[in-house]
Order: sequence, then structure tokens, then C-alpha cells
Amino acid sequence: MAIPPNVTPAAFDAALAAWRAAVGSEWVFTAAEDVALYRDAYSPYWGEPEERVASAAVAPATLEQVQAVVRAANAHRIPLYPISTGRNLAYGGSAPVYSGSVVLDLKRMNRVLEVNERNAYALVEPGVSYFDLYDYIEQAGLDVWIDPPDPGWGSVIGNALDGGAGWTASPFRDHFGAHCGLEIVLASGEVVRTGMGALPNSKSWQHNRWGYGPWVDGLFRQSNFGVVTKMGLYLMPRPEALYSAAATTERDADIVPMLDVLNRLENEHIVNGSTGIFGGPDGAAASFPTWTCSVPIYGPEKVVRAQMDYAKARFTAIPGVRFTEGELLRTPLSPEAQARVRLVNFGIPNLSTFAMLGRSPSNPDPAGGHIGFSPIVPRTGEALLEFKRFYRENLAKLSGGEDLGIVGPVYMTCWDRTLVCLIMFPIGRDPARNAKIRSAFEGWVRLAAARGWAEYRAPAAFQDLIADTYSFNHHALRRLNETLKDAVDPNGILSAGRYGIWPKHLRKV
Amino acid sequence: MAIPPNVTPAAFDAALAAWRAAVGSEWVFTAAEDVALYRDAYSPYWGEPEERVASAAVAPATLEQVQAVVRAANAHRIPLYPISTGRNLAYGGSAPVYSGSVVLDLKRMNRVLEVNERNAYALVEPGVSYFDLYDYIEQAGLDVWIDPPDPGWGSVIGNALDGGAGWTASPFRDHFGAHCGLEIVLASGEVVRTGMGALPNSKSWQHNRWGYGPWVDGLFRQSNFGVVTKMGLYLMPRPEALYSAAATTERDADIVPMLDVLNRLENEHIVNGSTGIFGGPDGAAASFPTWTCSVPIYGPEKVVRAQMDYAKARFTAIPGVRFTEGELLRTPLSPEAQARVRLVNFGIPNLSTFAMLGRSPSNPDPAGGHIGFSPIVPRTGEALLEFKRFYRENLAKLSGGEDLGIVGPVYMTCWDRTLVCLIMFPIGRDPARNAKIRSAFEGWVRLAAARGWAEYRAPAAFQDLIADTYSFNHHALRRLNETLKDAVDPNGILSAGRYGIWPKHLRKV
Repeated sequence: MAIPPNVTPAAFDAALAAWRAAVGSEWVFTAAEDVALYRDAYSPYWGEPEERVASAAVAPATLEQVQAVVRAANAHRIPLYPISTGRNLAYGGSAPVYSGSVVLDLKRMNRVLEVNERNAYALVEPGVSYFDLYDYIEQAGLDVWIDPPDPGWGSVIGNALDGGAGWTASPFRDHFGAHCGLEIVLASGEVVRTGMGALPNSKSWQHNRWGYGPWVDGLFRQSNFGVVTKMGLYLMPRPEALYSAAATTERDADIVPMLDVLNRLENEHIVNGSTGIFGGPDGAAASFPTWTCSVPIYGPEKVVRAQMDYAKARFTAIPGVRFTEGELLRTPLSPEAQARVRLVNFGIPNLSTFAMLGRSPSNPDPAGGHIGFSPIVPRTGEALLEFKRFYRENLAKLSGGEDLGIVGPVYMTCWDRTLVCLIMFPIGRDPARNAKIRSAFEGWVRLAAARGWAEYRAPAAFQDLIADTYSFNHHALRRLNETLKDAVDPNGILSAGRYGIWPKHLRKV
Repeated sequence: MAIPPNVTPAAFDAALAAWRAAVGSEWVFTAAEDVALYRDAYSPYWGEPEERVASAAVAPATLEQVQAVVRAANAHRIPLYPISTGRNLAYGGSAPVYSGSVVLDLKRMNRVLEVNERNAYALVEPGVSYFDLYDYIEQAGLDVWIDPPDPGWGSVIGNALDGGAGWTASPFRDHFGAHCGLEIVLASGEVVRTGMGALPNSKSWQHNRWGYGPWVDGLFRQSNFGVVTKMGLYLMPRPEALYSAAATTERDADIVPMLDVLNRLENEHIVNGSTGIFGGPDGAAASFPTWTCSVPIYGPEKVVRAQMDYAKARFTAIPGVRFTEGELLRTPLSPEAQARVRLVNFGIPNLSTFAMLGRSPSNPDPAGGHIGFSPIVPRTGEALLEFKRFYRENLAKLSGGEDLGIVGPVYMTCWDRTLVCLIMFPIGRDPARNAKIRSAFEGWVRLAAARGWAEYRAPAAFQDLIADTYSFNHHALRRLNETLKDAVDPNGILSAGRYGIWPKHLRKV
């Protein structure tokens, strides 16, 4: 049996006994084969001493059990790493950031507590996946959509707290931004409700997000200040139709006015679902446009037709830009239509991205996967062209002259006003190759930061590295985060190291 | 010269000397007539011992001066009360919550640092008013709108931090929600930048709000954790037109399906500017509808016409509901149109609300004003009808059988998903009458809280009272706020008592 770092066998035994009493022995895992299930399949340190692994896991089923588990961990100074469903592959999955932590696995807390059709919101527990929430809504026959990210098995809460995004319309695609109200267990075991939930007998917890006084919800995003046990989220009333188009051009420089048009349309909320800008390969062939902007619009048919006409007029005012309208798809989709569309764009969770990445019924668990470097760049064509040159100029050098299978850049308009340039790195099972990938990844982080670009989220193994780049005024924000961390989790038991925030006793000076 | 509470004359002298050295003697105010300018004209304790008044004021002009002032206050334990322009009348104005605090007046920091038309954002200092920002944009000829609240003289930053709202379109109307990135001076004097601003050389500080790791911005809303010295905010590209309509009905119960329709239209982002639901007087006459929903839509002409057709079809599907379309007004407004519209709906700041409330050229400073009790209720017709009954049933009792001039309820859809029921209380200069108003106000707060309704913001004199109602789990949220407060402001020098958060040495047990 593994023991967490800096914990005596006696203290660990005491914590295990308390957890078994609280959740039942069958939900406390210490056997190596059970604990191995929490390994990160995409770890860039797979099988190396630096791989971050759990020492044990405990899976409560209720709020009260979470409180009991956290209290015992706090009393015995056991490092915990809460996960929702642990499916955030490429960002750490279910493995802790601080090796040897005990995974606090919340997947059994999988109740959809409410879906309100009239006010279009849901209240869920951390174990609720996108599949679960979708099924609940379908079975109840409610006329609302969820906004699924690529992997439908992920947790609705976990994805929001990790800063994830989905594939329908703004503002629902910004999953943290679309949440409304949290219930949190602090390191002390205390339960806090935020927003209007702080009012006993509140009837608007999932209506108004801000509540009264400071809004503490942001502290629980990409961090380690508490264990979120309930979350409200805004849902999208089912739009009557999705109408998509693509604006394309063969000329590199056209991306400047094209992105200006897209920005204006999105900032006016005329186009509400743009998900990407695609750059063709170098020296684009006639059959492959140099730049493509996707222009999906959700809403009632007559409205989206008027919006599309307007968008078309704006894009085609740019000389050389072509605008190609696709099919207008009415909802609910017919089975025939379901078979040929990208389901996540219609609020239907699935796992097709994994198929695309090499997973299939005949090969359900291919070794390794990928991690992404996704810096936020300004939403201008100039920044995009600069990133394109930056990628081209540095790829060979940062790959040590080898072809490491790095793929990029993919330009994602994840949310209104945010542009992310994604570079994908394959992760395998060969330590020598993984070391090269890690070295390349680190190189990209450093070079990008020097230009004022940095990531909006990070794989567990690189969370410190990227936190280091957010260093304004001698890391003033990190020091503030540490001050807050020490105050709310004085023993430093929760998710040590997550997003670069370490408890006092583990902090580098 | 007044001296702050719990401060020795020697300590105060030392702080004053440090402030004079930092900002110049002419910007440190200790004379009674200067300090009196910071009184709250709407104080419900006007002229009584309980009126919260400043002991002095200091007005820095730069970030470095703010740091120096805060450092000296921290060293000498002087309570500071930062204000932006101090114009949040009815919510405390420029007077401190903790009587005897020194006002840290930021109105000299009035630079518009950037307005970016292509990405539709601004970066401002706290002294920038809506008038200032509007003038800057007009003079630069930029094609973006601001979202003004009623009083155009208010601070853009102050309004956002107070949780204020404006009168154009969602999502810009939610002023805290529309901000992107803060610069903050902590009680230690340290400067922190949030979001992408934590990255040195960042180029997307006003693009992406979330940045990396926990989002601390929420801590600086309606609170006292730092002094905000810069804020980014999203602006609205000038919409081509505003097209307004009103849905009306004579039957009380019709508000249930009407609000369901409005909610759905807003949650689908088809209607983006609804600002209110108006209830007619009891036993409505034929000339005054029982319920009116305002339906303003912003956007390109063809799009808003399609949206209005859709909204009309939805509203008129309710038997008995009438839908009256107004004029479609194109922007920029002609001078003729400007003269007859409500300017704030077109992004033009002004002070007409004050004229409405009794201020005029011949009576520029009428004694007193009003305060509001504005609980958030669920956005359903049932809740609205319940509130209407609640108001009617309790008005006479809570007014002690007198006509105190209380006016209500006004139903405000301040933001998507939020419904506020406003009751207005006149504040005058007669202590006996003000005492009755205070007593009525307290009664409304207590009765409403018992039904699960509480305020989203509060006049300074009632911030404790309302904080008390947010008491879930023995005031768990307040205790968390206090823990955070003690961590970031260990000497408790910043805005003691604001929104019910007191520093340790002033906390009631």
C-alpha cells in the first residue's frame, strides 16, 4: 500500500479508518490495481519516476460523506485531489498534480438535482456527465439543450471548473461563464453556498449568479480552494435551427479584415456560434483555402436567415472572400440528419473525437494520446499571422530537427473575444520520445510567453511552468493566490500544486 | 480636525504627512468644509449621530500615489474608504460605511487609457465617468457604444464594482459581468493585475477575462479587498437600429405566460434589451394596462425586424395579450430623434433621471433623495404576482399606517435571468421621518428574506442588515469572506464594513 508523502503510516491508517467509517470500506481504494485506474493515460511522464500518481482513492456518495472525508484528511494532514469524473484527458485526467495525493473521486455523486425548462437551468452534482444530463433532459422531454465539449463522458462541473468550452452557441460555450451558483466544501469541512444560494430558502440560486457582496465563485476555477459539490448552470432553450456558412479566402492577408468582420458580428451577437478559423497548409493548393472562418448561427429560421444575409454582406464586402452557405438544419434533428452532422454542434454529447484520435471499438484504449499547448492571442488577424509565422519559424528548432508529430496551429474562437492557437503534441509510451515532446512543449511555452502569449489551461505536468509565465510584478497574482490558499486551506490538503498553487509547506522559496 | 476612530493623533499626523509628501498638500483634505463634501446626500441618518461621515480625504492622481497612500495607511492603521467618483447616490455616495474613515478619492485618476474599436473594449481608470468615456469615444469618432446607467456622472469602474446595470443591450448591461481584467492595489500596497494582465507584455488583457488559474476579480465586487486602479470593459459595437415594442395585458394572471415568453426570448438572445415589466395601479383602468413588458431589440434593421416578428408571434400567441410595435430608430440618432428618446437606451449618458426625481436648473440640489430596496425574485410570473400581493398586504403595516411616500413595486429585468422588484423610499432632512423610513426599510428586508428574497445591493446604512439575511449554514459565506479579508488586508484598513464585511478588530462576535 502506498502512503502519501510527508504522512506517517499511523496518520494514514487513522484517515483510512475514518474514511471507511464515513463511506464504507468498498469505496476506499488502496490496492495497487485499483489505484492504477487513476493514472493519467496521457501523462507525458508515463512510467517514469516523475509520473504523478495517486496513493489511494476514496469515493463518497453524498455531501455529508465529502465533509467527513475532508475533515479526516484535514485532521491527519492527508493531501487530497478531488476529481469529478476524472475525464479531463490531456489536462491530467484523474491523476493528482502532487504525486502521492489521495484521489477524492466524486463520480458517485451523480444526481441531476433539477432541470428547469422555463428558466433554462440545471443544478447538478460533480459526477454528472454530459451524457447523464443529456439523458435526463431527453427522458423528461424538456426543450433545452446542453453545450457538450468533445468528450461526452466528462463532468459538467469538472469541465466548467477546468475552464472548458463546448460547441453550440455563445454564451453557453463558456462553461465557467455559464455557471450560476456553487456549493462548496472547504478544507475545514464547512459547506458554503455562493450567489443567491447563501440565502436560506433562496428561490433564485440558479437565476442570479452574483448574489450580494464579493463573488467568490471564481476562486474555485482551475484551483484548489475547495471541493465543489453542486453547481447551477444556464441551459440554452432549444434553438429552432442551425444555419452554417463558411467564409474563405486564398490570400493570407485577408484574415485581417475577415477576423474584424467575425469579431464585430460576434460582439454584436449576430453570429453566436463561431468555433474556429482554419488555416490551410503552406502554399495552399487551389482546392484548400488559405483561411476559413466558420459562421454557424443558432435561432429561429427567419431570424437566422436575416442574420446570415447580414453576415454574408459583411464578409463578401472584403474583396476576394467567398461565402458559402450550408444547409439550414431544423431541430430536433431527424435521425437521417443526426447521422451526418457533428453532434456536439446540436447539443448531443458523444465520443467521436476519440474515434478521430485513434480510439475505436477494435482499439478502445490506444496507448497515449495528446496534450495541447493553447496560448490565448489577441483576436486580430495580425496576431494570427504572427502566430502562424512564429509556429513555422520555430517548429524545426524546438523539435530538435526531428518530426515529433507535432500538429498545429489550429485557431479556435473558443468564446466571444477569445482566440486560442492550439498546438497538439502526441504522447506515447516511449520515455525517450516523451522527453523530447516535453522539451519541445517547454520551449513553446517560453517562446510564446516572451511575445505576450500564454495558455488558458495546462496539462498537470506543466501547470507550474505556465503559472511561472504569469509573472507580472514579481508574480503578484500568484502571491495573492497563495495568500488566499493559506487562508482557506491552512493545512494545504486540497489539490496541492494545481495550476501552480502550492500550499505553504510545499512551496518553493 | 476629525481623527479616525482607534487612531492616535500622532499616528494620524504621521499618515497625513506621508500622504502630503506622496500626493501634495493640496490633495489632502482635513478641513471640515472640505470633508463635508463627502457626505452622503441620501443618508437615511442625515444630521444624526449615526450618519457615516469621513474624517478626511486624500486624492492621489497616479497608481504610484495610490500605492504610497495605501502603504502609509497600512503602516499607521488608518481606515481608508476608496471611492471612484463617489456618485453612487442611494447606495452610500462618497461617504464611508465605517464612520471616521478617510476617503481615498480616485476621481483625479480619470484617464481613458484605451478604446479599441476593432475589438470593442476600453481600459479606464476609476475617475473616468460615463460622460468622460462617451466624450472620448465621440471625439475619436469610434463606432462603439457604452452602456450608461441612469446617472452619467458615475464612474465606469465604480458602477461595475457596485454591481450596477445600464440601459442598452445584454450582455453589456451587466456592468460587473462586462468587465475584463483589473489592476488592483492591495492593502500591502502591492499591485496585482488579473486575467491575462498577469502576463507581462500581455496583448490580450482586455480580450480574455479568465486568464489562468483562479479568477480573483469577483473578490473586488461589492467588497473591500483592494483598490481597483484600472479596469477593462467590453463595449458594444454600435447597433444599426433599436426597435422597441410593448406587450400588454389587462389580466393579472397573464404575466405568467408573458414572462415565460420574455425569458425564452432573452435566454435565446433573440430579445436583448428588455428593461422592465410595469404593473399598472390596482384595479387598472382601461387606459392603463395591468402588465406591460418592454421588448427592445438592438441590431441590424433586417435582423431586428425578423426578431421582432418572432417576438410578436410568441407574445400574441397568449390570448388577450396585445403587442404594440414602436418606431424603428436608426443610429446614429438624428438630433430630432435625440430630443425625444430616452438617451441611455442609445448609449448616451445624461442626468435626466435626476430631473425626474426633482432636480432641475432652478432646484439643483433638492434636500434628500431616495433609497431602494431591490430584492431579487425568481423570474417567473408566479413570483411576480406573489411579490405584488406581498407588497400590497404589508405596505400599510410596515409604514405604521402612515403614507411615508414609499413607491413600489417596480419590476426590473436588470439582466438576463435576473428579476428585481424595486421599492423606493424617500429620504429627507427630517430625522423623525427618516427614522420611520428606516424602520419600514428594515421591515421589508426581514419579511422578504423570510420568503427567500434578498437584495443584490444595499445602501451603506443597511449593508449589515442585508448581509445578515445571506445566512446559509450559520453565515458560511460571510465567514469565508472574513477569512479572505483577514488574509488580504490583515490590518483591516480598507473599506471596513462594506457589504457587511468587517475587519477582525471591528467584527461583532
